[in-house]
Amino acid sequence: MLYVISAPSGTGKTTIRRRIEKIAPDIKYSISCTTRKPRPGEKDGVDYFFLDEDEFRNRISQGRFLEWANVFGNYYGTDRVYVEELVSQGYDVILDIDVKGASQVKARLSELITIFVLPPSMEELKKRLTKRRTESEEALEQRLKGAEKEIMLAPWFDYVVVNDILEEAVNNIISIIKSTRCRKENSRDVLKRFLDLLT
Amino acid sequence: MLYVISAPSGTGKTTIRRRIEKIAPDIKYSISCTTRKPRPGEKDGVDYFFLDEDEFRNRISQGRFLEWANVFGNYYGTDRVYVEELVSQGYDVILDIDVKGASQVKARLSELITIFVLPPSMEELKKRLTKRRTESEEALEQRLKGAEKEIMLAPWFDYVVVNDILEEAVNNIISIIKSTRCRKENSRDVLKRFLDLLT
Repeated sequence: MLYVISAPSGTGKTTIRRRIEKIAPDIKYSISCTTRKPRPGEKDGVDYFFLDEDEFRNRISQGRFLEWANVFGNYYGTDRVYVEELVSQGYDVILDIDVKGASQVKARLSELITIFVLPPSMEELKKRLTKRRTESEEALEQRLKGAEKEIMLAPWFDYVVVNDILEEAVNNIISIIKSTRCRKENSRDVLKRFLDLLT
Repeated sequence: MLYVISAPSGTGKTTIRRRIEKIAPDIKYSISCTTRKPRPGEKDGVDYFFLDEDEFRNRISQGRFLEWANVFGNYYGTDRVYVEELVSQGYDVILDIDVKGASQVKARLSELITIFVLPPSMEELKKRLTKRRTESEEALEQRLKGAEKEIMLAPWFDYVVVNDILEEAVNNIISIIKSTRCRKENSRDVLKRFLDLLT
């Protein structure tokens, strides 16, 4: 199965990701493609798949991206072939993308499960973003406004997870994935084994 | 939320129940009402609510049972008022009932989540039932036939959990309950808090 996790910045999605990657080896985060140049220490195929613009545009025209966007002149996108490969290997795959990307994927794949991560409150989100101190007051304000806009769209998601206590949030996300595996629609093979036997 | 867990006999539902009651204090198994006489050691309000026949029939006519049945002359049923009381206290409530009972409850409550527990295979089920050695060959055959009939109805349930490894089955059931709590429809209060703030 394929999952989207969207979370406004400051909600802790990177921490959640690291934790899930550590404790759930059967769940894989999808690696995005980008035309942005690698930063020091970033590795191709680990942090991103680094593509040149021709190749990226080529893939766009082939319809190879589940979602893509151009942010400040750099392209970012999720390669469909790569994701299908992971799914066919039996992994549950998480796309860590924003709300706009989520709606693009949802339009292409009906069987997608979407999860929105909320901060405990707007005050707490402000606190967390302020703590980073890596940004100007103005950039912080912009980030908060962006977060508010994204939160308005939370009701379009299938699930809502509040990241108050990290372990609980991670546990809830893993529960969503585990329970999806047990859905009747996803248990056809198991059921068929019995029903064949009974006829 | 209210859950039904149905499992053919021999699938390990009593073991699952004991385990869930031990590790998940916010999940309560519903206690059934019965007109059967208490066996030695059974306590009213713990094992069952023991009622006399007049009282039981009275409650049937009042529509107070979410489901009820008469098995070999004894009545069994789930009291709606008792269940609603547990739900209003914030518990997730599990009804440990058979497939027929499940369909009665489903007809009365649309918001019910139904879980069917499967044995790993029919051979394994036969083995587990034979191990008990408490029954005649004939009774065993009857039990197997009954299990087969119930398994035919598994596709009517929302979720299917295979009880191969106990801890995994229990974990999957708890995941189903946790993920249901995160469903958007059940997160209205959390979402409202943010959306009010943003308008």
